Amino acid sequence: MTAPNYARVEALITDMRAGKRLALARLISKVENRDPDLHEVMRRIYALSGKAQIWGITGPPGAGKSTMVDQFAIELRKRGKRVAIVAVDPSSPFTGGAILGDRIRMQRHTHDEGVFIRSLGTRGKHGGLSHATKEVVLLLDSAGFDVILVETAGVGQTELDVLKLAQTVVVALVPESGDSIQVMKAGLMEIADIFAVNKSDRPEADKLVKEIITMVGLNDHDEKSWMVPVKKTEATRGVGMVELLDSIGEHQAWLGKTGNRDEKGRRFLKEEVLDILVERLERSLDGAFETRSGKELLEQLLRREIDPYSAADTLSGQ
Amino acid sequence: MTAPNYARVEALITDMRAGKRLALARLISKVENRDPDLHEVMRRIYALSGKAQIWGITGPPGAGKSTMVDQFAIELRKRGKRVAIVAVDPSSPFTGGAILGDRIRMQRHTHDEGVFIRSLGTRGKHGGLSHATKEVVLLLDSAGFDVILVETAGVGQTELDVLKLAQTVVVALVPESGDSIQVMKAGLMEIADIFAVNKSDRPEADKLVKEIITMVGLNDHDEKSWMVPVKKTEATRGVGMVELLDSIGEHQAWLGKTGNRDEKGRRFLKEEVLDILVERLERSLDGAFETRSGKELLEQLLRREIDPYSAADTLSGQ
Repeated sequence: MTAPNYARVEALITDMRAGKRLALARLISKVENRDPDLHEVMRRIYALSGKAQIWGITGPPGAGKSTMVDQFAIELRKRGKRVAIVAVDPSSPFTGGAILGDRIRMQRHTHDEGVFIRSLGTRGKHGGLSHATKEVVLLLDSAGFDVILVETAGVGQTELDVLKLAQTVVVALVPESGDSIQVMKAGLMEIADIFAVNKSDRPEADKLVKEIITMVGLNDHDEKSWMVPVKKTEATRGVGMVELLDSIGEHQAWLGKTGNRDEKGRRFLKEEVLDILVERLERSLDGAFETRSGKELLEQLLRREIDPYSAADTLSGQ
Repeated sequence: MTAPNYARVEALITDMRAGKRLALARLISKVENRDPDLHEVMRRIYALSGKAQIWGITGPPGAGKSTMVDQFAIELRKRGKRVAIVAVDPSSPFTGGAILGDRIRMQRHTHDEGVFIRSLGTRGKHGGLSHATKEVVLLLDSAGFDVILVETAGVGQTELDVLKLAQTVVVALVPESGDSIQVMKAGLMEIADIFAVNKSDRPEADKLVKEIITMVGLNDHDEKSWMVPVKKTEATRGVGMVELLDSIGEHQAWLGKTGNRDEKGRRFLKEEVLDILVERLERSLDGAFETRSGKELLEQLLRREIDPYSAADTLSGQ
């Protein structure tokens, strides 16, 4: 990796802290592209982070997540909060269109310096996107945004990884989505801090609310645990959004009071250190397989003369 | 990690090679559960692997993948081939039901010793499921199955990782699936060796076939590259299945002739070695964070007194 440009990094961080959008956008690109300056950026901004509230919003396609995020942004701006929105699309770069299309609805925020929006797409392997996303959120946190909204679609491993970073996860569901909802609910049950049954004017909404309440009730509870609330919303008309924000506020208060915020922080930090070391390992292994002995080892593997576990021993010097 | 039981591993592998199902099932469980015997199992079976054809079958929910896999199994059995089916469901353990439900259709194979079926669910993090799945496939390969069918749903990172192991990937699509197909197609375009437009008796099937042919045509081609065919099937009635098998046979022949089979093998083996080293790293890091100095480091991280990159340096002894 090329040496970082210390002066450039320092200047960009100073500008970012002064609210300059271009500097923030450049720093985010450095994180996304795993630029040579990346480590230096992360080393410097980390001490400035840790103040923002980080909310995750997820749910199946068509649940109205983007509209919900839009409404959150409007309401939070009324309350004088600076808001950053990170939309994560783990599928192919080609599919960026779906989320970018949603983003058109967000144009009302274009001239508002208090709202920052960024979409992130696929990068690398072994959790590359979730790692980059988590570091982008740390960067936005250090830039002074009060609330960072992380919007993901679906419940793949990448999305679940990304949501580990969020302090409060809102899962949006809609009535009448059939079997896929059954599937989603299960994977989402474990990560939801709050359920929002959106498009609740539709028939079957009350049935879905009851189903979720039943599922939530099946989890173990004691007086220390958080009772996952199920809220009804119509995001397009703004119905139920203030109540949903109140629930998020209650969850944030509960996190602080019970020590769960720190516990989530520890889990996130362990993951972040692991992600950093995995990324280094990937890089060093790519290099090792480019050497003469690495290439020979690969041919021996292909000919079944050595097995992958023994090859791993050789490469790690054991 | 506890020391492996060499005698037990050897006995199980001998039994597996003799066609004993229980031994195979036990070995698969060892891989799935990352048992202390795992490394010894993989070291011993690797030299026995490398003979099977490995096909991946993927596509959106409702595309008829399981029916297609069922039809493949029936036809391959007629041709005297031993067939193993691995169904991968990366979502929560709770959702196993969906794929298990499909498996009921497979009961016609229950008393056929030439067909082996196994579903795999979520394990661990950082590609745990895809790593375990790839090792299960190596195991089935070493057990002497001629064809291993790997069925996955969706296009999350886990599914894409799993499919890297397949030599030939069939992507099943259905007409009239709307927007989700648009999304799927893009992510699937890059991994498809063959497209199967299933339920092709439905209206709009020809339109979808044309669309895919157009998309395939947009990719770069030269005389050395594989022209991705688009086949029409009705898996429930067995229509078009022999033609689809012929396409797979042509792709397998092309892989061998052009050296692409070895090239895929090298890519897979690099990934396998990386997966092994990442798993070791995860384990050693978990241990490090349990020590007194590791715990103190975590608290320093939480208090923002040290940043994750510097903590990674400390933990890796740099």
